[in-house]
Amino acid sequence: MPKEKVAIIGSGNWGSAIARIAGQNVRNHSDVFEEKVPLWVFEETVDGKKLTEIINSTHYNVKYLPDVPLGDNVVAIPDVVEAVKDATALVFVLPHQFLAKTLDAIEGKIAPNAKAISLIKGVDVHGADIHIFADVIEKRLGISCSALSGANIASEVALGRFSETTVGYRPGQEAQGLLWQKLFQTPQFKVQLIEDVAGVSLCGALKNVVAVAAGLNDGLGYGNNTKSAIMRIGLLETMNFCLEFFPSVKSETFLQESAGVADLITSCLGGRNRKVAEAFVLTGKPFDVLEAEMLAGQKLQGIHTAKDCHIFLKARNRLGAYPLFDKVYHICWEGQDPATLTVDL
Amino acid sequence: MPKEKVAIIGSGNWGSAIARIAGQNVRNHSDVFEEKVPLWVFEETVDGKKLTEIINSTHYNVKYLPDVPLGDNVVAIPDVVEAVKDATALVFVLPHQFLAKTLDAIEGKIAPNAKAISLIKGVDVHGADIHIFADVIEKRLGISCSALSGANIASEVALGRFSETTVGYRPGQEAQGLLWQKLFQTPQFKVQLIEDVAGVSLCGALKNVVAVAAGLNDGLGYGNNTKSAIMRIGLLETMNFCLEFFPSVKSETFLQESAGVADLITSCLGGRNRKVAEAFVLTGKPFDVLEAEMLAGQKLQGIHTAKDCHIFLKARNRLGAYPLFDKVYHICWEGQDPATLTVDL
Repeated sequence: MPKEKVAIIGSGNWGSAIARIAGQNVRNHSDVFEEKVPLWVFEETVDGKKLTEIINSTHYNVKYLPDVPLGDNVVAIPDVVEAVKDATALVFVLPHQFLAKTLDAIEGKIAPNAKAISLIKGVDVHGADIHIFADVIEKRLGISCSALSGANIASEVALGRFSETTVGYRPGQEAQGLLWQKLFQTPQFKVQLIEDVAGVSLCGALKNVVAVAAGLNDGLGYGNNTKSAIMRIGLLETMNFCLEFFPSVKSETFLQESAGVADLITSCLGGRNRKVAEAFVLTGKPFDVLEAEMLAGQKLQGIHTAKDCHIFLKARNRLGAYPLFDKVYHICWEGQDPATLTVDL
Repeated sequence: MPKEKVAIIGSGNWGSAIARIAGQNVRNHSDVFEEKVPLWVFEETVDGKKLTEIINSTHYNVKYLPDVPLGDNVVAIPDVVEAVKDATALVFVLPHQFLAKTLDAIEGKIAPNAKAISLIKGVDVHGADIHIFADVIEKRLGISCSALSGANIASEVALGRFSETTVGYRPGQEAQGLLWQKLFQTPQFKVQLIEDVAGVSLCGALKNVVAVAAGLNDGLGYGNNTKSAIMRIGLLETMNFCLEFFPSVKSETFLQESAGVADLITSCLGGRNRKVAEAFVLTGKPFDVLEAEMLAGQKLQGIHTAKDCHIFLKARNRLGAYPLFDKVYHICWEGQDPATLTVDL
C-alpha cells in the first residue's frame, strides 16, 4: 500500500506543537507514513531573516514555539500549494480568518485520495447560517474531514506533559479516526475517538467564549466559586447550543470526552483567552492592543467567536437562551462593565 | 402556621458560613422562621476562653471563620440536645466522624415534625455496604432528610462572592426543597433544586477524592492539561460510581447542577483537599501532620473518602473500574510514589 503523506497547514503555537508530534510519529509508524512532514508557514521576517529559513536551519519555530524543536523531518514551506502537493493527510491548524484564502489557493491542487482533519477553533457564521470549519473544508475540497480538539494548552503538549485529546470522525469512517490517532497519539498525548465531528468542533470553539468569561472573573477577583459557576453555565450553554443547532451531536461528548468538559476546564485555568481577558479587566486596555502585546498580534479566538455567536443568535432570535455567551459579547465588544458578568445569569 | 425553628449542628468553616446565611435569611423570612438560630458548637478552649462564649460575645467564630460575623441571632450552644430542642429544621454540617455520636445523643429528643438536611461530606462504608449520610440521618431519626452540596468554598461564600449550590430533595417532597431554598438562598448564593438526594450527596463526597488527585498533580507541577484530564476522569468515575451503586441518581446532576461538575471544578482549583495534597507532594510530610498544621487538626475529607471507597470497592471486587479513586488511595495510604498519578489511567 502506498504510504500516507502528511502536510500541516499552519504553524502558530498549536500548529507547531502538533507538527512536532506528527514528525515523531511518522517515524514511529514508518510503515504507514512518509518520513517528511511539510509544514506550511505564513512567511514573516524575524530579526531580518525569513521564518521558514530559521525553522529549516534550526528546527525551532522561534516565533511561536521557541522552547522545543520541531524535528528535522518537519520542513517549513512558504507556498501552501507546494506544502500540500501529493499530501494524502491534510492537517488544518490555522486561525480561521486565514482558512478561506487558503482553500482558494489549494482547491483543485490536492491529491484525489486526500483526507483532512480540522484543528481550527471557531465557527463560520453568515447571518443566520452557521457551519463548523470541518464542514467548510469538506464541502470546498470534496474530501472527508475529521476534527481534533481537546484539553491541549499547546505549550504543555509541546513539553510532553500528559494530555488527552479527542478526534471526531464522520459516520462510519472509524478507519480515518484510527489513522489520525496513529499520527497524533503518544504515551503522553492520548487520543480518544468518537463519531462526532460537529460536537468536537463546537466544543473547541465555544469553550473559548467561556474561557474569556473565566478570565474576566479572574480579573475581577471574584474567586473560584464564581468561576466554577460560570464554567458550569458555560458548559450548559455549549451543550444547549450544540443540541439546538447541530442535532447530530452526541451528548456524551460534553461529559466524557477531552474535547468537552476537560478542554473547557484547562482553557479556563490556563489558556490565552483566560489570560488576555483577565488583562482586559486589570489594565483597561482594548483587546486589539492586548492581542498585539500578549499574542504577537494573533487574534484572541474567544472574543471573535463570541461576536460570531452574537450575530448568529441575533439572526435566529435566540439570544435570550444564551445569557453567558451574550454577556461576554457585550463586555468585550459593546463596552458593558465587566462587573456585570454574573448579573442575570 | 407555627414558624420553623432552625438548628445548625456543626460549626466548622462550612457550618459557620452556612449559619451566617441562615441567620440573615430567618430575618428576611420572619413569616416562616423563628429569629433565633441555635448553633451547636463542639466546645473547645481558645486563648483560655470557651469558644461558645467567644462566639456569643463577639459573634465571630474566631477559630474556624475569623473574618466575617455570624450575626447576633446565631447563638452558640455547647450541648447538642439543647441546640436541637424544639427545632423543626435540622441542618447537619459536621465532619462525618462525629455524626454517629451526635445521632446517639439526640435520638428521641427531637421535635416530632422535624425535617433535616445533610451538608456532610463523605460516605458511610461498612465492608460491602455503602450509605450516604442523608440516609443514615433519615433512618436513625425517622425524619425526612434532604442534602445540600455545591461549588462552595466556605470562605468565599462567607465573603458574599457569587456562588451556586444544589439542594437534593426526596421524591415528591419539593415543598421541603423550597423550604431549604428559602433558608439558604441569597442574591449571592443561588440554590438550585433537584429531586436527587443521593446524587447531590455522592458528588459532594467523591469530588474530594478527585480534588486530592488535582492537588497531587499541582504538587508534581504537571500543569493544566494533565489536571483537566484528571478532573475529566474523576467526573466520569464519580458518575459511574453513582449509577452503579445508587441507580436512582439522575444523570443530569453531574453536568447541570452546581453539586456536579461545578463543585468538582472549584474543589480542584481552590479547596483544602487540593491544597493539602499539593503540600503532601511538596513537603513530603504525612497527612496527619499536614492536617494539624494546615487544618487546625480537622480531617482531610478526600483521603478518608478515598479509603472508604477503597474498602467498599475491594469488598465488591470492583476496584479495577475506578483507577483514579484507587490511585489516590494507594498514594495517600500505601506509600505509592505520587509520580505514578497518571500511569495506567
